[in-house]
Amino acid sequence: MTVTYDDVAAAAGRIGGHVLRTPVLEVAPGLVFKLELLQHSGSFKVRGAFNRMLAAGQLPASGVIAASGGNHGLAVAYAARALGVRAEIFVPEVTSPVKVAGLRALGARINQGGAIYSEAAEAAAKRAAETGALVVHAYDQPEVVAGQGTTGLELMEQTGGVDTILVAVGGGGLAAGIYLGSGATPPDPVGPPPPPGFGPARPKIVCVEPERIPTFHEALKAGRPVPVEVSGVAADSLGATVIGEIAYGILGAAGARSVLVAEDAIVAARRTLWEKHRLATEPGGATAYAALLSGAYIPGPGERVAVVLCGSNTDPATLTAE
Amino acid sequence: MTVTYDDVAAAAGRIGGHVLRTPVLEVAPGLVFKLELLQHSGSFKVRGAFNRMLAAGQLPASGVIAASGGNHGLAVAYAARALGVRAEIFVPEVTSPVKVAGLRALGARINQGGAIYSEAAEAAAKRAAETGALVVHAYDQPEVVAGQGTTGLELMEQTGGVDTILVAVGGGGLAAGIYLGSGATPPDPVGPPPPPGFGPARPKIVCVEPERIPTFHEALKAGRPVPVEVSGVAADSLGATVIGEIAYGILGAAGARSVLVAEDAIVAARRTLWEKHRLATEPGGATAYAALLSGAYIPGPGERVAVVLCGSNTDPATLTAE
Repeated sequence: MTVTYDDVAAAAGRIGGHVLRTPVLEVAPGLVFKLELLQHSGSFKVRGAFNRMLAAGQLPASGVIAASGGNHGLAVAYAARALGVRAEIFVPEVTSPVKVAGLRALGARINQGGAIYSEAAEAAAKRAAETGALVVHAYDQPEVVAGQGTTGLELMEQTGGVDTILVAVGGGGLAAGIYLGSGATPPDPVGPPPPPGFGPARPKIVCVEPERIPTFHEALKAGRPVPVEVSGVAADSLGATVIGEIAYGILGAAGARSVLVAEDAIVAARRTLWEKHRLATEPGGATAYAALLSGAYIPGPGERVAVVLCGSNTDPATLTAE
Repeated sequence: MTVTYDDVAAAAGRIGGHVLRTPVLEVAPGLVFKLELLQHSGSFKVRGAFNRMLAAGQLPASGVIAASGGNHGLAVAYAARALGVRAEIFVPEVTSPVKVAGLRALGARINQGGAIYSEAAEAAAKRAAETGALVVHAYDQPEVVAGQGTTGLELMEQTGGVDTILVAVGGGGLAAGIYLGSGATPPDPVGPPPPPGFGPARPKIVCVEPERIPTFHEALKAGRPVPVEVSGVAADSLGATVIGEIAYGILGAAGARSVLVAEDAIVAARRTLWEKHRLATEPGGATAYAALLSGAYIPGPGERVAVVLCGSNTDPATLTAE
């Protein structure tokens, strides 16, 4: 299950016509936001979804299946509609009617059942075994990690390289993918080839996690992925109970850090992103920035930092609420 | 009062450290959004405000004065705070308490009075004559037009040129500035000089106006700027009663078109920008896109179009309201 830079580069070629090349915004000298919150379906998740589907070649007539009441479900439904295949999404009972309606609007078939996510996931796996549909996992598949990694590849191309990338971690697919995707920058296609050894150094990956969902933090302590309790404001998008095996392998080997942020830091970051920058994020989408704003991560002098703002599936009325 | 491309280029050099280089986002092949809604203070207006202040050299101890209950007031207050000078903003009685609070939060002194904008503007002019403060007009000053024009200069650099730019018009400062700023692209500073005549052609400027605020439309009919009745959903940001003399001179000579859009087209564009693109615009900020979405402007085959999304000072709760 090894995933490499080459897989990310291949993913970029595969999904290029289907996802947005989201812009970067330099908000202060040495501080760049990657505006992945403007991505189709409102989060980075479509990158992995498209890559998983397109890498599979001919898709089964029964289409694709995913378990998610959130961004992953929206992304799979979006990608399936774009590619003209059926999507069946399994969501837990607790999923809000608004989210179910959003999935239906994208043409997905919804199966609502199970008290928690893992029960919906089990039902999805069972159903896939019956129908032969392609399962698109929310984070723990090589094609999904490679797809999310195109975010990092783009970021390096757009900025010419940064020292550090702050990225939120739930299942870890985005962070692991970005680590891979930021590992090499393809030579300028029209310019002369760079001299050997030339090019931006590999950035440091800082994994930012809500205190109440410390999947990578606890895995680092235990030396392996372990389940955690999930709660708090970002649980709807970062609420994986355990970090993915693939992500843990990549991030662990990379020496990536885990930085925890408090609930109120996430709320404050989200508010600042709206008030100061007019960017509408969901709590999970603001979590990486919370590390910087709260001082949980303090860059060194001259350190060039990129913050990945990864999701915007939120009720905008809550952006200014206390 | 002639303003030229060189004035825009000079403005870009002057304000570069103070305003954001807002990103562009290619949302479909041949369709680019210029995300000026992410600009400091929530609109393009800071470009003109900074340029007017910085071009003045030493600012008077009495600071700057502007009349505006909206984006221009916020921009002048923002720029004055950044430059460490006093700002006095005259706003009509009808200005909402939220906007007044926003201006106060930026450290501006507020003078509320007069039933309508023109009365506040008269009071501002009278006060400026007494104190010697620098008046920053919302659109009809050469430095203001040149400052707004840096939006167009950036857009050309970022896209390599487009065929058409759709831009909302109230007083016309942004549209006129963009026309000037898009007229020449500086040679690549590190590459060889381009051959003579090389470079993107000047784009066509399409001025999009709400049906209920047709300042440029009526000026074109009359052959000169004439006052119009102001009403409708975009009146808070595009609600100039007359197009600026400078803007009319530039846009008229340029042969720019006026395209009118209905109220419901503006509302629909704003809603689509949120639901599909996660961009939070005020009605005036969505007006240019309304022309495209409603079919009031239909691009030709292969026509590359840029839409300037120019403002986001809005209550986000209204983004999803019926």
